[in-house]
Amino acid sequence: MTREQLFEQILNKKSFLCIGLDTDPKKLPQHLLDAEDPVFEFNRQIIEATADLCVAYKPNIAFYEAQGPKGWVSLERTLQVIPQDIFTIADAKRGDIGNTSELYARAFFETLDFDSVTVAPYMGADSVKPFLVQGNKWVVLLALTSNTGSQDFQMLRLGDGKEEYLFEQVLQTSSTWATADQMMYVVGATQAAHVQRVRELVPEHFLLVPGVGAQGGSLADIARLGMNRQCGLLVNSSRGIIYASSGADFAQKAREAALAVQREMEALLEQYL
Amino acid sequence: MTREQLFEQILNKKSFLCIGLDTDPKKLPQHLLDAEDPVFEFNRQIIEATADLCVAYKPNIAFYEAQGPKGWVSLERTLQVIPQDIFTIADAKRGDIGNTSELYARAFFETLDFDSVTVAPYMGADSVKPFLVQGNKWVVLLALTSNTGSQDFQMLRLGDGKEEYLFEQVLQTSSTWATADQMMYVVGATQAAHVQRVRELVPEHFLLVPGVGAQGGSLADIARLGMNRQCGLLVNSSRGIIYASSGADFAQKAREAALAVQREMEALLEQYL
Repeated sequence: MTREQLFEQILNKKSFLCIGLDTDPKKLPQHLLDAEDPVFEFNRQIIEATADLCVAYKPNIAFYEAQGPKGWVSLERTLQVIPQDIFTIADAKRGDIGNTSELYARAFFETLDFDSVTVAPYMGADSVKPFLVQGNKWVVLLALTSNTGSQDFQMLRLGDGKEEYLFEQVLQTSSTWATADQMMYVVGATQAAHVQRVRELVPEHFLLVPGVGAQGGSLADIARLGMNRQCGLLVNSSRGIIYASSGADFAQKAREAALAVQREMEALLEQYL
Repeated sequence: MTREQLFEQILNKKSFLCIGLDTDPKKLPQHLLDAEDPVFEFNRQIIEATADLCVAYKPNIAFYEAQGPKGWVSLERTLQVIPQDIFTIADAKRGDIGNTSELYARAFFETLDFDSVTVAPYMGADSVKPFLVQGNKWVVLLALTSNTGSQDFQMLRLGDGKEEYLFEQVLQTSSTWATADQMMYVVGATQAAHVQRVRELVPEHFLLVPGVGAQGGSLADIARLGMNRQCGLLVNSSRGIIYASSGADFAQKAREAALAVQREMEALLEQYL
């Protein structure tokens, strides 16, 4: 998917919502447990109930991997029922030496057909570039994450006269590896104090923003500080939407939760775009 | 597996060799392609031919993941034929926010029964600690990797009067999260110039050392600079052993290649231990 297609979808749906499919088999509604593939059945109903309200789905790969081979089957099936015009993100946080990152790219872009994959930057250029070989596939690189552990290394000050944080250097260096047409950055909603600086460094790039909802970040702050002229934001919500109800009405309640976020986003798009 | 059990195995086998199972379906010997599960059959014969010469096996998860669900089946089967007394490393480079790292830990320590998993440090303490919950399971944390991209961030100098490299801070900070009984570090063989400094910071920890062989690192240099009183080294070789021959004699040639390394290791253990 191109950046223009993504922006067009945002305008059409008046939404920059990404729904995180962190589907835990231990949290499924009781009535789904008899289905042949309960995880897939849960996802299918969530997607059917929310596809007109969001512009991206982000399966959290750990949840599928923890199930062994059958988890990967559930993931394959889930991808098949996501409408073609919706952006898909494999939230996998991969990254390894070149010949190994090539295999991870094969896993998510060929074996599966994701539009993008989240990648960790620690191993540098040759660990990220193998994910950029296909022009219509994206890297979503970790920059400043939403968790408390982001303080440990991402917020270290650099020396050699740089005086900036490590995450700023990650943004600067990695933005030379690919344009805003193939690279996005993870910037946590809990990091609103730094979003202005992120925008100085990468004004055009889309930001994937986790941490609204369960983790406490503010959607309004992120929109005010982070929106650019093509929106430039995909704000993720996982638990707040997919687990809005644990009963037979889970899909309807997920839709209501997504709709509430979409309406807030519609107002923010009118205000800032 | 405990550190003492690992050291005992090193003494018994006179080896600190880890064999990387980077099994690429595109590189299998022709005569295996008719097997029901060619990747497993390749691994099974490699393990049978080398198990007395190495102390660890390290499947590179990307190679299995790229095959979709059947790759995970091959991986499960492979684990089942690795003798119980041999240390197993899931080379997966995982790491995410706490509730997600918990799921990755479940994937590699419960769904599969690895002794350890490689983890990327960028997201900090709460992304690593969920892998440390079980006392007999290990984290192998990326510190200073063997690839050229290690220069991009790992070798950045820090400020605030620290004047050290990022990888040194990663070692210092993370060594407070777990003892040498649960944490190892990835230090590339191509980084011999920094191994002495690594040993000052983490004298007791095992180092997992990739990059000997295809990537050009020297086993003798690593042993001289990095060995501690419990050996403290697992030196990995993947392609140099498992692809020593692409013919019907692949397992025999893998044994010969592993034996050559084991003999060099035996001499180094006599010299430095």
